[in-house]
Amino acid sequence: MNFIKAIESSWEGKNSLLCVGLDPDLKKMPDHILKMDEPIFEFNRAIVDATADLVCAYKPQIAYYSAFRAEKQLENTIDYIHSNHPEIPVILDAKRGDIGSTAGMYAREAFERYQADAVTVNPYMGGDTLEPFLRYKDKGVVILCRTSNPGAGDIQDLESGGKKIYRIIAARASGEWNCNGNVILVVGATYPDELMEIRTIVGDMPLLVPGIGAQGGDVEKAVTKGRDSKGAGMIINSSRGIIYAGAGENFAETARAAAVELRDEINKHREGSRKILS
Amino acid sequence: MNFIKAIESSWEGKNSLLCVGLDPDLKKMPDHILKMDEPIFEFNRAIVDATADLVCAYKPQIAYYSAFRAEKQLENTIDYIHSNHPEIPVILDAKRGDIGSTAGMYAREAFERYQADAVTVNPYMGGDTLEPFLRYKDKGVVILCRTSNPGAGDIQDLESGGKKIYRIIAARASGEWNCNGNVILVVGATYPDELMEIRTIVGDMPLLVPGIGAQGGDVEKAVTKGRDSKGAGMIINSSRGIIYAGAGENFAETARAAAVELRDEINKHREGSRKILS
Repeated sequence: MNFIKAIESSWEGKNSLLCVGLDPDLKKMPDHILKMDEPIFEFNRAIVDATADLVCAYKPQIAYYSAFRAEKQLENTIDYIHSNHPEIPVILDAKRGDIGSTAGMYAREAFERYQADAVTVNPYMGGDTLEPFLRYKDKGVVILCRTSNPGAGDIQDLESGGKKIYRIIAARASGEWNCNGNVILVVGATYPDELMEIRTIVGDMPLLVPGIGAQGGDVEKAVTKGRDSKGAGMIINSSRGIIYAGAGENFAETARAAAVELRDEINKHREGSRKILS
Repeated sequence: MNFIKAIESSWEGKNSLLCVGLDPDLKKMPDHILKMDEPIFEFNRAIVDATADLVCAYKPQIAYYSAFRAEKQLENTIDYIHSNHPEIPVILDAKRGDIGSTAGMYAREAFERYQADAVTVNPYMGGDTLEPFLRYKDKGVVILCRTSNPGAGDIQDLESGGKKIYRIIAARASGEWNCNGNVILVVGATYPDELMEIRTIVGDMPLLVPGIGAQGGDVEKAVTKGRDSKGAGMIINSSRGIIYAGAGENFAETARAAAVELRDEINKHREGSRKILS
């Protein structure tokens, strides 16, 4: 299925904008999981089984697998989600970007090897480096726009022709780069004013919004300023705040409770007129 | 050994600025290699054995491995170079970049898992996302500045405060980001004027220069405009133009001949006053 349609159907079917980030860190896993043959996969499987009815998407971050030679466990995780919860799209967070011939290989990595439904990409190298991803019409291409980290403004806030770089990216992403209708933008919850600016530029384009939880983003501000005209439009990611909510044998239930709480907190702010908070 | 010192010693010891890009493409490999158990590794080994006396560095591009589940063959390739040619630094071309905690995982992937001597990174997310790489003082951090692809200017040429983005990156890279003295910049040979501008900003900082060969960069212009005050300062990469110079059983000898030719062509232009060519 087309990624954007799958996300829209997920928002509605699950009544949730929550995305759980699968960033497994062996140092934070319970002992009984660490003793298993494929601890990363087993950890993810428990998290997925405990949260599948609560989320609109899952987002594994590939560095947490490649740093530990765990590519096979990443493949198994995505395959497990597709096989057992085929309605939930998987966004591979990889922030790839390179010249055309190499970008084609990265697209192949994300979409063919890992069977991801969407992948995050970095726009610094220019529009031609995004094309090999955009060409996969049914896959989502999630372009970095205004990221959630403290130094995000170093480059993204530079002004050119009276417009900050992230506004220029937003305009291109919703214009020329979106010829196949499969573009999404990354905008951090930690910068709610920028989130609102970008929402104004891109209309109802879906936004992937990291920065809630461990990074300190405020849910009310993010949702109130970032939602689309239908009270949706956001894939709000939390990784550490959910998957490491508990460290004991019952970590999956604790993660579920954290996911319920965050989903409900998000839903509280989806309706009503768009307020200007500061 | 410290990466920058290793490169300087390599420039002098080999009398070469040539870097060979190890971007193995199964579609372009000779039949007898394809029949082997680890064709990518065997192909690379033959190329390395045929060119080790001619190069200052090797640069494997990780997407060519990860698209084909060939991480093990990439590990074996880097290990083979380190074991048999310990004087030749290996630059892992991965163009990574993410928020701090994740960037730490990418640094671990490049420097600990793959034992690369340097890695390419993308600056779009800001200075704090580079820190986890910069912290490895003996490793090289190769920051994208002005890339070689046709769309490089989309973002990199935007002007802010009268300066193009790539100039702002060059200034930060040679200033605050270089506190451990381990920064290098990527500047494409396809844009010789920008190469000269950046050389003026960064002094004798080493530059990784792709774009020669298949991408159409002119050797004379690139070297004349990009060399440092000692007639060195450049790691000039060619991938396809060397490793696929021939497709037959004798592909490694053909690659060697292409490498000799390019090394010599580069060396022809290293001396003399810096001419303004256009």
